[in-house]
Amino acid sequence: MSLTDDLLRANARYATEQFTGSDLQVRPLRHIAILTCMDSRYTAQGVLGLALGDAHVIRNAGGRVTEDAIRSLVLSAALLGTRACVVIHHSDCGLFGQSDEELRQRVAEVAGARATFGFLPFADLEQSVRDDLHALQASPYFPPDYEIIGFTYDVRTGRLKHIEP
Amino acid sequence: MSLTDDLLRANARYATEQFTGSDLQVRPLRHIAILTCMDSRYTAQGVLGLALGDAHVIRNAGGRVTEDAIRSLVLSAALLGTRACVVIHHSDCGLFGQSDEELRQRVAEVAGARATFGFLPFADLEQSVRDDLHALQASPYFPPDYEIIGFTYDVRTGRLKHIEP
Repeated sequence: MSLTDDLLRANARYATEQFTGSDLQVRPLRHIAILTCMDSRYTAQGVLGLALGDAHVIRNAGGRVTEDAIRSLVLSAALLGTRACVVIHHSDCGLFGQSDEELRQRVAEVAGARATFGFLPFADLEQSVRDDLHALQASPYFPPDYEIIGFTYDVRTGRLKHIEP
Repeated sequence: MSLTDDLLRANARYATEQFTGSDLQVRPLRHIAILTCMDSRYTAQGVLGLALGDAHVIRNAGGRVTEDAIRSLVLSAALLGTRACVVIHHSDCGLFGQSDEELRQRVAEVAGARATFGFLPFADLEQSVRDDLHALQASPYFPPDYEIIGFTYDVRTGRLKHIEP
């Protein structure tokens, strides 16, 4: 069976046996947006005890504040009413302790082309959260009362740690 | 109780009552990366019947192929061994039928500053998936055998529809 057919079969099971969200609306009920890593080992909803419909979830490599993350968070706030962003970076991240040079070399080996962009690696987990909180604070595109909260997440224990800006 | 304290309390319940993933490793078990919208009403894992540990999940406003999504997907493939990307856009998306001018106006009303960047709205759901599949196909940074799959997701039924490139 192809991957496409396999995923469609799994989705048919979801739609018939588990799907319950048909009354939920586009605006998140708890007015929160989460920005976190693409890591496979956790969901933002699980870690924060959120239900479907509660929060926007933005994920990228590292959970970094990029132009695209700001595009998404600004839309979330201005168009869909979120009033807080929760930034979560995690332990054992693939970006930790790497250099852009090492990552470009690895991409060139696998794909045959050398990346012209950077990958946003980091060397200090808590500092990377603080850096990204500061980047959000510096953006002029959020409402005056917008709240910005930072955590680290430990993939071995399931626990968050609060990081002050 | 502050939002931070509320989230930490919910996370403490998660860590003690639900957390089970302590043996999972950084490389996704099923070698898949999902790119989808930040929408609150579904999780990528739920819709595709995936377990924790199975797949990277990249989310942004619309599930669009941006430079940051490519940064994340390329890292996922070259560094962490994923071999397929699944792009999912959904019905009732906040970006559907909007214009950049309307969105910039809305941000200016809420935040007091006019955005200098675009928000990637779209007018045709299936075409937006095809456009993003083509953007991935045009990138030189993926391995030769990398598979690219597109779906739309109906938030009212829970069902995926396969979209050919």
